[in-house]
Amino acid sequence: MNKSAALVFRENVLPGDPVAVRGIVASTGFFYDHEIDVAVELVDERLQKGLKSGYLFLFAAQGDRTVAYSCFGEIACSEGSYDLYWIAVHDDCRNQGIGKILLDRTEALIAGRKGRAIWVETSGQEKYLPTRKFYLRLGYEEEAVLKGFYSANDDKIIYVKRLV
Amino acid sequence: MNKSAALVFRENVLPGDPVAVRGIVASTGFFYDHEIDVAVELVDERLQKGLKSGYLFLFAAQGDRTVAYSCFGEIACSEGSYDLYWIAVHDDCRNQGIGKILLDRTEALIAGRKGRAIWVETSGQEKYLPTRKFYLRLGYEEEAVLKGFYSANDDKIIYVKRLV
Repeated sequence: MNKSAALVFRENVLPGDPVAVRGIVASTGFFYDHEIDVAVELVDERLQKGLKSGYLFLFAAQGDRTVAYSCFGEIACSEGSYDLYWIAVHDDCRNQGIGKILLDRTEALIAGRKGRAIWVETSGQEKYLPTRKFYLRLGYEEEAVLKGFYSANDDKIIYVKRLV
Repeated sequence: MNKSAALVFRENVLPGDPVAVRGIVASTGFFYDHEIDVAVELVDERLQKGLKSGYLFLFAAQGDRTVAYSCFGEIACSEGSYDLYWIAVHDDCRNQGIGKILLDRTEALIAGRKGRAIWVETSGQEKYLPTRKFYLRLGYEEEAVLKGFYSANDDKIIYVKRLV
């Protein structure tokens, strides 16, 4: 059963979103505290600076509750290359296909802005294997491996999905 | 003849450095206006926020004149990976070996901070061939090519120099 039919999406950012994003990102159990802080900082920056921040968002809600979000933006000094900075689904709402729907909609938004390509960076660590499979399943290609990027035994993997 | 013997280095950032950096970066003829603005913004941010900005600098002067600089910093969410954001020598002072000396000293500073690796990104465009040769000559390895990253026909090339 796909319970995600009741999802409602919005692109505008609301004053309660820093708290919502902290809750979503923390619930996944994937991120260190300083990484969670970075996720929240991007929302704060968008609230303070507006679109000039360069950070775009797509939030997904079930009823009154924001359950997932993506954060993306055009890469400075590029033409049509977008970075997918964050995509996360609250742990309570996993296995409903929300991540796929959210990513599809995010890609459509980027395509609508004449984006040529979407770049995603993730870690090569074992615990990120489901993340890497998620991107591969949804048409992202592994473009590069930066050995020892995050730490001596933690590579950065760069994926890309070309839209044109 | 190596006229660069008279170089004096400093790591502190002075109020006149945004202007000096603009002059150096613009003189190279390599960068678009919006890229030059980014270079200057990093100096401004360091002046405003201090070391909390995450931007470290090394300036090289001949007499009273700042003629070259590097800007670097530890990559967020990494352990010991440093990004070399900028390195530039004023066009008036080319072919004196200043770039090499500046990069050697920058690497020594990063090694002194327990940096494990230095990452450099540049463009695959023809006009950046001297830049790419510069890094290869100084021990950097090409780690990745991101096809069409900057624009449809402009790849990003990622180099790394491992210090440990």
